[in-house]
Amino acid sequence: MIDLKHILASIHKLDEKALEDAQIKVNSLAKPLGSLGRLEDMAIQIAGITGKQHNVINKKCTVVMAADNGIVEEGVSSTPQNVTAIQTINMLNGLTGISVLSQQAGAEIRVIDMGIKGALEHPKLIHKKIMHGTHNFAKGPAMDREQAVQAIHIGIETVKTLVDEGYNLLGTGEMGIGNTSTSSAILMVLTGCSEDIAVGKGGGLTDEALENKKRVIRQAVDFHQPNPKDPLDILAKVGGLDIAGLVGCFIGAAYYRVPIVIDGFISSAAALLASHMNPLVKAYMIPSHYSLEPGYKCGMDALGLEPILHMNMRLGEGTGCPLAFHIIESALSMMNNMVTFESAKIDTDYLVDIR
Amino acid sequence: MIDLKHILASIHKLDEKALEDAQIKVNSLAKPLGSLGRLEDMAIQIAGITGKQHNVINKKCTVVMAADNGIVEEGVSSTPQNVTAIQTINMLNGLTGISVLSQQAGAEIRVIDMGIKGALEHPKLIHKKIMHGTHNFAKGPAMDREQAVQAIHIGIETVKTLVDEGYNLLGTGEMGIGNTSTSSAILMVLTGCSEDIAVGKGGGLTDEALENKKRVIRQAVDFHQPNPKDPLDILAKVGGLDIAGLVGCFIGAAYYRVPIVIDGFISSAAALLASHMNPLVKAYMIPSHYSLEPGYKCGMDALGLEPILHMNMRLGEGTGCPLAFHIIESALSMMNNMVTFESAKIDTDYLVDIR
Repeated sequence: MIDLKHILASIHKLDEKALEDAQIKVNSLAKPLGSLGRLEDMAIQIAGITGKQHNVINKKCTVVMAADNGIVEEGVSSTPQNVTAIQTINMLNGLTGISVLSQQAGAEIRVIDMGIKGALEHPKLIHKKIMHGTHNFAKGPAMDREQAVQAIHIGIETVKTLVDEGYNLLGTGEMGIGNTSTSSAILMVLTGCSEDIAVGKGGGLTDEALENKKRVIRQAVDFHQPNPKDPLDILAKVGGLDIAGLVGCFIGAAYYRVPIVIDGFISSAAALLASHMNPLVKAYMIPSHYSLEPGYKCGMDALGLEPILHMNMRLGEGTGCPLAFHIIESALSMMNNMVTFESAKIDTDYLVDIR
Repeated sequence: MIDLKHILASIHKLDEKALEDAQIKVNSLAKPLGSLGRLEDMAIQIAGITGKQHNVINKKCTVVMAADNGIVEEGVSSTPQNVTAIQTINMLNGLTGISVLSQQAGAEIRVIDMGIKGALEHPKLIHKKIMHGTHNFAKGPAMDREQAVQAIHIGIETVKTLVDEGYNLLGTGEMGIGNTSTSSAILMVLTGCSEDIAVGKGGGLTDEALENKKRVIRQAVDFHQPNPKDPLDILAKVGGLDIAGLVGCFIGAAYYRVPIVIDGFISSAAALLASHMNPLVKAYMIPSHYSLEPGYKCGMDALGLEPILHMNMRLGEGTGCPLAFHIIESALSMMNNMVTFESAKIDTDYLVDIR
């Protein structure tokens, strides 16, 4: 296994020459300059990631990291813990939101047991269980620092496997009751935002239960005092195995130079953590939808990214990724197939760049 | 030809029983209530349109209404008038933004010459030319009232033809240099908003040219005083043949009960006009992307609709439609294929509706 520090130090910026050439190509397409907006941005970004002008998505996959969270003992979730296991199986049987939307998009999912409570068997489940759910972080650290590193490595290796198999567009998803709580705690440590901004109703809490959730997370953050400059300390003390795995996915995507889509709130917390381990990782990320979970905006603002889809969604699982895959493939189609001014025989003198 | 008044009077509300049943079905899917947001809304809306619970898109098509606008004589556009004809041909040859994005989405386009200046030939071009571009509305009415009605009928008949051929998801696009000016004028009459809100840079104007465009449109609206309660008066005095055709598409979609996607600024002006002819038409519309053209928001606010895509796009042609088609098909896939709580064996007692 390559050392995590070495991997982080080996991540490079996007290919500047490819970015420049892609911008020139986009500007040569027969349309007012900049008028395809985010489609142009994504096509250029992907050129910078791959170093090539002509990019086609061969295979696409959302990685779903599944794990339980000990914090649910504190009544922070409206959903029973065994739903993590139930929905993981439903997911693998093609029946949950991410399964159905992925099939519709011609995409696949890879579901990884990072730490589901109990023994779970399914022919398609990838077994990487580190522990049977994290510890309750209201009472002690969620996991050891070594376990956090181990989970990150699983994420990196998952990306390596997918890239080796020819996948060139990835997404990030999760299944883990209690993981809006871990995400909120991470966000509060990294951004300094209050629980009123970072903590939401997750799957569906009453107003009273939301106040309890805020109190539990605030107290735990105050108790652990995770070091905001040490992402592994944050992950170990108040994180989750699913989020740690996703941190690894984001790092791996940057290391292996493949675009990776951020889903919603939990994915964005993992993305922000990864960007604190190496800010260059951000350039490989593509945001998808504007999650209704209130902390999402705070995390994305910290990342400096803007989602393309406003769907009022808050399901998680990675459901924003297959939706974004469609738009990303549309962007590449624009780049590869639109006519240029030269061959369209349109005089370009009239164009004024109003971007 | 069926009388326009008769068609408008024959438009019905969405099927209330189908809407109710679809809401029950959506609530039975194994996810927190409402957590797939706009996907749920779209699946329910389409059930209300078709009257069926199980909907699958067979064929989808964006109708592109192409026409020239006499107002370009006033220097309101940065783009030469002959680009309407050039891009119409490029479009039919599969080379423009809407062509490429439609191919990527497995969708088709139907391009209709409603009033392009000059004779234009292409095997796929549908010839419905009413006149060789409208008159300059700075000097007189853009067209006769009868020509506006004729253009609306062409839109309605186009929808009929497509529905007869098995298309069950439609989009609205246009090609017509100068048509942000007609759209702005329509918007100012219908909403009472000022030229500072309604008028933008279109394909790309300098700041100075933008001021001229605002002045030209303001003066024309003041001169004609179109009756805000008479959409045909507005269309005839300051509208365009492309927009009139799109008004017909929206009316036709409601009459023939098929969902229809609004593209950007010009489509939204047509959608708003159609909704003033019969407000029931609105229920058949699905907005796509948040156009950067500043008047767009004003039109959508007046319609009470919110786009799902935030792409910073302002190309027109219908380019938002194939992007939205993907998301709409995702919504139907959710409805048709997701597991229910009952078969997922998840206890629903914990669910709290936090919508």
